[in-house]
Amino acid sequence: MRGHVSHPLHRLFYPDGVAVIGASRNPRKFGHVQVANLLRAGYKGRIYPVNPKADEILGLKCYPSILDVPGRVDVAIISIPAPKVPGVVKECVEKGVKFVVIISSGFSETGPEGAKLQEAMLEAVKETETRIVGPNTTGILNAKTGFTTTFVPIGGPVKTGPASFIVQTGLFAGVFLLHILTAERFGICKVAGLGNKCDLDESDALEYLALDPETKVIALYLEGIKDGRRFMRVARDAASEKPVLILKSGRTEAGRKAALSHTGSMAGRDEVFDAACRQCGLIRVYSFEEMLDLTKAFAMQPIPAGKKVGIASYSGAGYVLASDECVLRGLELAELEEESLAELAKALPSWAKPGHPVDVEPLYETVGNRACELALRILARDKNVDAIMINVMALSKEFKDTPFYTGPEKYVEYFSVLKKEAPHKPVSICVSGDKEAVEEIVEALENAGFPTYPSIWRAVRALSALYKYAQIKKRLRPEPGP
Amino acid sequence: MRGHVSHPLHRLFYPDGVAVIGASRNPRKFGHVQVANLLRAGYKGRIYPVNPKADEILGLKCYPSILDVPGRVDVAIISIPAPKVPGVVKECVEKGVKFVVIISSGFSETGPEGAKLQEAMLEAVKETETRIVGPNTTGILNAKTGFTTTFVPIGGPVKTGPASFIVQTGLFAGVFLLHILTAERFGICKVAGLGNKCDLDESDALEYLALDPETKVIALYLEGIKDGRRFMRVARDAASEKPVLILKSGRTEAGRKAALSHTGSMAGRDEVFDAACRQCGLIRVYSFEEMLDLTKAFAMQPIPAGKKVGIASYSGAGYVLASDECVLRGLELAELEEESLAELAKALPSWAKPGHPVDVEPLYETVGNRACELALRILARDKNVDAIMINVMALSKEFKDTPFYTGPEKYVEYFSVLKKEAPHKPVSICVSGDKEAVEEIVEALENAGFPTYPSIWRAVRALSALYKYAQIKKRLRPEPGP
Repeated sequence: MRGHVSHPLHRLFYPDGVAVIGASRNPRKFGHVQVANLLRAGYKGRIYPVNPKADEILGLKCYPSILDVPGRVDVAIISIPAPKVPGVVKECVEKGVKFVVIISSGFSETGPEGAKLQEAMLEAVKETETRIVGPNTTGILNAKTGFTTTFVPIGGPVKTGPASFIVQTGLFAGVFLLHILTAERFGICKVAGLGNKCDLDESDALEYLALDPETKVIALYLEGIKDGRRFMRVARDAASEKPVLILKSGRTEAGRKAALSHTGSMAGRDEVFDAACRQCGLIRVYSFEEMLDLTKAFAMQPIPAGKKVGIASYSGAGYVLASDECVLRGLELAELEEESLAELAKALPSWAKPGHPVDVEPLYETVGNRACELALRILARDKNVDAIMINVMALSKEFKDTPFYTGPEKYVEYFSVLKKEAPHKPVSICVSGDKEAVEEIVEALENAGFPTYPSIWRAVRALSALYKYAQIKKRLRPEPGP
Repeated sequence: MRGHVSHPLHRLFYPDGVAVIGASRNPRKFGHVQVANLLRAGYKGRIYPVNPKADEILGLKCYPSILDVPGRVDVAIISIPAPKVPGVVKECVEKGVKFVVIISSGFSETGPEGAKLQEAMLEAVKETETRIVGPNTTGILNAKTGFTTTFVPIGGPVKTGPASFIVQTGLFAGVFLLHILTAERFGICKVAGLGNKCDLDESDALEYLALDPETKVIALYLEGIKDGRRFMRVARDAASEKPVLILKSGRTEAGRKAALSHTGSMAGRDEVFDAACRQCGLIRVYSFEEMLDLTKAFAMQPIPAGKKVGIASYSGAGYVLASDECVLRGLELAELEEESLAELAKALPSWAKPGHPVDVEPLYETVGNRACELALRILARDKNVDAIMINVMALSKEFKDTPFYTGPEKYVEYFSVLKKEAPHKPVSICVSGDKEAVEEIVEALENAGFPTYPSIWRAVRALSALYKYAQIKKRLRPEPGP
């Protein structure tokens, strides 16, 4: 396998010089936000604002055209009106720019006239070394280097982590990104926004990210597939390396029509796509919410060895619902070892019976707020348990003296038992209760590497995805025979 | 129809005197939290703590037994060990207590011995006017009067609103309640926690809440149905009055086993239950998350006249996904009137085409952050639109000067157009972006009566439930013929 550094897309994520064509002094313009974002996100390479009417933008010298830029330019970001784009792309080719990222809309997604402009742009790069990203996109982000082409304001350096995204949409990638940056804790590796994909497509990006050693999980949002055959080959290779999640819209006629007007994509029949996903080992998701839920699980937890789930819950309704969800999602409830049941029996009050799922509530009566730790320890040690789902309660500090109170630090301490006793067993946690307490506990647990969910079904869904990938990996990369 | 005041359950929700049997001075005991909750929630009736070993609890005079209490007692809350409960229930009968709410566990859900205790308890109330709620529950809440039997700490008066709950689980109702109180804005009317339902059951509670004029939507969590035939009759009557949502666990063999150990419920076959729901006009939900999502929609929005949805989104991916979800959930995309398209065309930049779903992004270019208002106004006026789903962006104040910024007050102002121009059209809003900004916008919008969701599919799911209820109502209460 070729290394990622020699992959043709490497410079798109690690450019040496970046030109912002359409840079503006007006803070309300995309071309201003883009320059500001590069500075705020901590991009250390050279930045060349291009604008014939300005001398300086945000302290950076401004150039009348890309041809006037003195240094090497690996990436040019273009956000000028569509009709002017083909001409500027020609200049980029002349300058030897490796990638033009075209943010502007008004191309094939708007009809025949826009399609003509898109053609002209493609004509300009034909048989050259210049490649086009977009048009109609927010483009690229590399969290580690702070390189970004997005026009959605980013407040500072982006939290880095193992998750990379390939998204065929502009603004959503931006706002979606804001959500990830402010509300999620798994951290981002790279983002490739593809827009209309007139040149560079999902297969190119997926091929690169599969090779990228910093990317541990890849999530895609697509409205259509450009080259189905190539995509299937690339996807299968990628899925054998790391989990690949895919959200594909255009599942209905109405959705396909909408996709056509958004990125000019031909969505194709959904059943065909579904079968292709199964064949290639892609994990299909149906909303951005599910995409993030699963990304978090893959970013934070190991792949389970089997499908036997150990469940613990402070609430009866919680373990009943969790049991249903496990079975409906292809998992099984573990049968606990004799030893585990004996340990439970010893800890429980006389009126309660040991069993599985583990009912944590009676344990509060005997071991107080160590109930959750006891349950976790038993599930961690039990050899019949491959994965753990637990439902925990969040009470505000005001109620510290009640039997059920467990604070964020205590929860982190209790869950750390798992890392010691069973580092190979994934855990998925549902946290609910008082809003502020939930937020504190979620933050503490996720910063310590334990994924949390606001509801039981989502916690179980995450575990089931981990198990699904265990099966995919086994199928795509079978262990060598004896 | 009988009024709710003369319904046999009325005093359970509006008791004149409440005894807390097992009241405790130890703040870590249930019997302490219960008294504290009544005080904090603002219950204005008389409270009688019962504990032979204490003189006073939280400033209230304590009585050695229920028989020593001087005044009338409508409800006795019992949280003493199970073996002592039947004796105390006998005393309650002697005292003429109307309802005993048994919080204690250790009854039929634990096996034959517990079942015997439950039988003894039932024997004690046989042919008397005393009725039992529970055992094994958190019991009752009436938000308006501050009457509550729960042992999960409540910090103060409960936000009142139109949503009532019937839940067959103890602790979950408690923590679930904490979530509602701190994270939701629709407000609670009444909660009935039923536990093992040895006497009073879901049909009793549903019958009462259907009559209750303050309850506009009823949500149930059940692990089993006690009297199927009666439930179906009561449910059908209730559903013809107001929307009734039902979450029923025990969908799988594993779930049914777990339900048996939780509340001793026989869950029955899921297909049978599903058919019954359809027949009675109950709206089935599959998680507490869905239950709350839909409760919020019903609490805040009108029922639509038809299934044509008008969609507006700042993001292409957003409107493509929304289109798919609408169609997959039995809704249809509206075809906008000529007039609406003309108005859009006038406002759009030259490169963009008017259409439906309404792409809000190009409008930012021309009308700035009034884009969202313009889209809302067009959908509100369009006669082909029955319901509106809109996807809005949340940016932090830091980015006030960017083209997309809209603050909480502005959003409320923009959405208020709907109340004026189309009060009969429900709206469902997806808010995403910067976490803090999302929270501010969500709070402002929901306090103004506009339901919000963190993802598009959930926003559409809520609209589809409103439409589903429009159909149910039409079926159960057909308009009189000509």
